[in-house]
Amino acid sequence: MTARITDVARAAGVSASTVSRALRGRPGVSDEVRDQIAAVAARLGYTASRSASSLASGRTFTIGVIAPYIGRWFFGTVLDAAEQVFSAAGYDVLLYNLGSPETRKRFFTKLPVRKRVDAVLSLLIPDEEEAAALRSLGVPLASTVGGAREGFTVVGIDDRVGAESAVRHLVNLGHRRIGMVSGASEPLHWTTPVDRRRAYLDVLADAGIAHDPALEADGDYTVEGGERAMTELLVVSRPPTAVFAQSDEMAMGALRALRRHRLKVPDDVSIVGFDDHELSDVIGLTTVAQPVAGQGAEAARLLLQQLDEPEAGTPGHVQMPIRFVLRDTTAPPAPRGPQ
Amino acid sequence: MTARITDVARAAGVSASTVSRALRGRPGVSDEVRDQIAAVAARLGYTASRSASSLASGRTFTIGVIAPYIGRWFFGTVLDAAEQVFSAAGYDVLLYNLGSPETRKRFFTKLPVRKRVDAVLSLLIPDEEEAAALRSLGVPLASTVGGAREGFTVVGIDDRVGAESAVRHLVNLGHRRIGMVSGASEPLHWTTPVDRRRAYLDVLADAGIAHDPALEADGDYTVEGGERAMTELLVVSRPPTAVFAQSDEMAMGALRALRRHRLKVPDDVSIVGFDDHELSDVIGLTTVAQPVAGQGAEAARLLLQQLDEPEAGTPGHVQMPIRFVLRDTTAPPAPRGPQ
Repeated sequence: MTARITDVARAAGVSASTVSRALRGRPGVSDEVRDQIAAVAARLGYTASRSASSLASGRTFTIGVIAPYIGRWFFGTVLDAAEQVFSAAGYDVLLYNLGSPETRKRFFTKLPVRKRVDAVLSLLIPDEEEAAALRSLGVPLASTVGGAREGFTVVGIDDRVGAESAVRHLVNLGHRRIGMVSGASEPLHWTTPVDRRRAYLDVLADAGIAHDPALEADGDYTVEGGERAMTELLVVSRPPTAVFAQSDEMAMGALRALRRHRLKVPDDVSIVGFDDHELSDVIGLTTVAQPVAGQGAEAARLLLQQLDEPEAGTPGHVQMPIRFVLRDTTAPPAPRGPQ
Repeated sequence: MTARITDVARAAGVSASTVSRALRGRPGVSDEVRDQIAAVAARLGYTASRSASSLASGRTFTIGVIAPYIGRWFFGTVLDAAEQVFSAAGYDVLLYNLGSPETRKRFFTKLPVRKRVDAVLSLLIPDEEEAAALRSLGVPLASTVGGAREGFTVVGIDDRVGAESAVRHLVNLGHRRIGMVSGASEPLHWTTPVDRRRAYLDVLADAGIAHDPALEADGDYTVEGGERAMTELLVVSRPPTAVFAQSDEMAMGALRALRRHRLKVPDDVSIVGFDDHELSDVIGLTTVAQPVAGQGAEAARLLLQQLDEPEAGTPGHVQMPIRFVLRDTTAPPAPRGPQ
């Protein structure tokens, strides 16, 4: 009887995929372990070619990644970090950029990843139907956005705690007219704008500040959108003295709008963002820092772990740390502000 | 005798791949053309499933994309634009992020794209050996960087003309101590830093300004590198009154270094970048604008064109327009500058 890959795995005390990677010379296995596995395989008379081991294991050594907007800094950074982890472990990435509703609908209808990938990393939040479609693939699933979800390993941050710290910072500085630039026009099942808005409303209520819907504007989570939204907030009857932008890119757009209005930051208007974009330090933006590359790398690592040890189950929901970063765009309101 | 896809193509007056896409319901074919092709196919008794047409044509409907650093704005933007064009035409993207020398070596040794992709888009400049490896795949090749190259469709800009305009702008403002933040530590076969440096030297010589090697610093084409490089330029015996940064991200790093030195821009030091990064407008950076997304989209379109009309050959070298953008980071040198 011929030795199977599982026999080698059992004898070497490692997983079948580690045997497969070791014998194909792929990275992600130390030289010591590789030598040890090769010795066991030789003893048992087991040999494997890439295609043979692929056939035996049903593995494609490819990870499907679905993302909403890879051109945006946040998603590009998450993708870059995840791809590096996959690549180091010998996996290729099949990328699907599902920015438009049509592309997204087509993807979930046809599921072109079926039988082509060993796992799927989602940088977007699937709705219930989409999540069910992904689960039907029968492969490990992970996501870097959204809350806990059946069948998915979710790596994220606590959006409410982060947003609360940003808004409370403005309240504690003495601001009462506090605006928000949000991302309401995004797909409804994206929870980030909802959670950050909830935090905004909670902190205002907690401080006894009446909520004024005129101080909320949709910035579409882009630089241009942030500029448009800030411009809207500057034409209301009593403009805000401080604004919480739900992302650094929208905050940068808001700064551009203020510049065009010849308004000084933070003298006339304070701005706080969310993300700690790599350029936020350059422009001195006060923000809430989250580990963006860290979330991509961690989600990728957890997916690979599930592939190597399927019996261990889905890791569930992992929350990464966030921290408030004070820079130069926030200050107490001016004695005679625009209000 | 059964009708083949080429029979349908000939009868309908379109390419075989258009027939294939039309009959599989993929986008990139108008409804009118699709109906017409379907009618011809029905008349000839031709039917095609996706797998049948894939087998018949040898097509995988997948494009391999190799990139050096997808986490950087330039490459992320090019990739995003190219991916959208591929996706709209019904092609998937297999992404290889070859940032480290090891990953790159492994890719070109094993060529995991062989028989898995219909074409390759390179966002990095292959050396001679790597280019030969890609040509051995026997599929259309395109690149968004570097000069004309055998077997490749290259979409790019004229780096020398762009860099000349940036440096000439500083000379014409009256600067004589003009530094440069470059990217010398990048892989040697990347021609961009070489061409932009050549332009810098030419304009200085043309203006009768002696070249001072102490005014050149390596910024590694990153924000952090630009900050380090500017810091180096500020500790030479006679610091520059103006600096040409070979990329906007390095220019932003330089601005951060100047801010930390409490130096005013452009009063104490002028800075000009290259790219027109989406945030350059926010910070008011004078720069040379190039169509970044445009280069990715154009390269993708030309690759698809080669797939549809292989007999038309390789389009060769396409140059995209650039333009100088004056903003707020450049001005004549101060009467009593740091020199």
